Amino acid sequence: MNTAVRTTDTAAPAADPARSGLYAEVQLFYARQAHLLDAVRAEQFAQTFTQDGVFAHSPGIPPARGHAGIAQEVREYNERRFKTDPVQRRHWFNMLDVREQPDGTVHTEFYALVATTRPGQPQPVISPSCVVRDVLVRSDDGELRTRSRKVTQDQELFD
Amino acid sequence: MNTAVRTTDTAAPAADPARSGLYAEVQLFYARQAHLLDAVRAEQFAQTFTQDGVFAHSPGIPPARGHAGIAQEVREYNERRFKTDPVQRRHWFNMLDVREQPDGTVHTEFYALVATTRPGQPQPVISPSCVVRDVLVRSDDGELRTRSRKVTQDQELFD
Amino acid sequence: MNTAVRTTDTAAPAADPARSGLYAEVQLFYARQAHLLDAVRAEQFAQTFTQDGVFAHSPGIPPARGHAGIAQEVREYNERRFKTDPVQRRHWFNMLDVREQPDGTVHTEFYALVATTRPGQPQPVISPSCVVRDVLVRSDDGELRTRSRKVTQDQELFD
Repeated sequence: MNTAVRTTDTAAPAADPARSGLYAEVQLFYARQAHLLDAVRAEQFAQTFTQDGVFAHSPGIPPARGHAGIAQEVREYNERRFKTDPVQRRHWFNMLDVREQPDGTVHTEFYALVATTRPGQPQPVISPSCVVRDVLVRSDDGELRTRSRKVTQDQELFD
Repeated sequence: MNTAVRTTDTAAPAADPARSGLYAEVQLFYARQAHLLDAVRAEQFAQTFTQDGVFAHSPGIPPARGHAGIAQEVREYNERRFKTDPVQRRHWFNMLDVREQPDGTVHTEFYALVATTRPGQPQPVISPSCVVRDVLVRSDDGELRTRSRKVTQDQELFD
Repeated sequence: MNTAVRTTDTAAPAADPARSGLYAEVQLFYARQAHLLDAVRAEQFAQTFTQDGVFAHSPGIPPARGHAGIAQEVREYNERRFKTDPVQRRHWFNMLDVREQPDGTVHTEFYALVATTRPGQPQPVISPSCVVRDVLVRSDDGELRTRSRKVTQDQELFD
């Protein structure tokens, strides 16, 4: 089973994300964003997106849009799935590709797994395996924000 | 189940750990520290802590203190748990937050999993899921060292 | 079970891979290399090695050599193992040590796991746990390439 590797991005971006510090900045941004999501701090997580941000996190669920929409989706998703099934989830990202675009946006592509721990079961369930593609932009305050996120579960690749 | 996200740290630290190279330095420090731990090089692992370092690695076990105390704890923990159950453990850290503090220390917070392989069982057991909070300091020799480490297993969050 | 930690490398390398940006550059290189491997883009993956590159990826399989040899090995390995067992694999690397050598090569050592998803089984199998040791060189075009890769599965450590 093959997956598409982005080919629309420039093969040799003008700026080098490793030498500029951008690569580490994206890693740090994602760490803090994931900590907020896993703590179900819905409003703070939503604010790591742009005001018009789009968050397509699961197959079959319409993308959430904007700070209020993303915060609501995070709250409701957690209510729906985990109200009677308490869990501690941890989002793990890895193999992070970062490509600055000519228009100043930053395209990223990375792998994700979620480690889910339940009461009385010390061994977490680690699932699903996903690929995430983000468009990041730098806001007026100098901070990175996610303009759009598309999560594809590996399982969807067989459909 | 929500977990606390550190809020005592400054929201916008003066120095940017991505641009200064500190972020990558911490990643490299943790890689070498974990390699020593997983090779059960107890003395060398202990020396990645400060002389007064504190290592609280498991619930119900008093924190180990100082180079001799940490080395002894690592040796004895491995003897106790794995003498009749040979394993190769690998500590994986991820979603690393790094925050320089006004006093010059560096606070980190990250996720951890341990992949444990046993003879005849190629598939590792991946457990437990933890959050680790460290205070790092820069020693006189210019190297980072861990002043304190507190590991919290996700399972403890349900107690 | 103890594993060897490289001791032939200089303890205090002249150049600091964190501050120079090399550490992030290696992370980015590995992300793109893994994306190509997991997409089974055999020729493009092979070209992340030097022309005389050596790829020893599994116990009992002779190392593949050179661009054509590595591409062929990747294609045939995927045919042999997965032709009647469709999978989406994801290589995860972590705890990356990077050491610049006096001769200009870059020695790396890191942990690896493979998350393998199959149709109808959303939860990936995560196995085996490995240690990978690479020699990287900078090519004339300024890009990093792998001159040699030796993968050791943790299971082999018990043999």
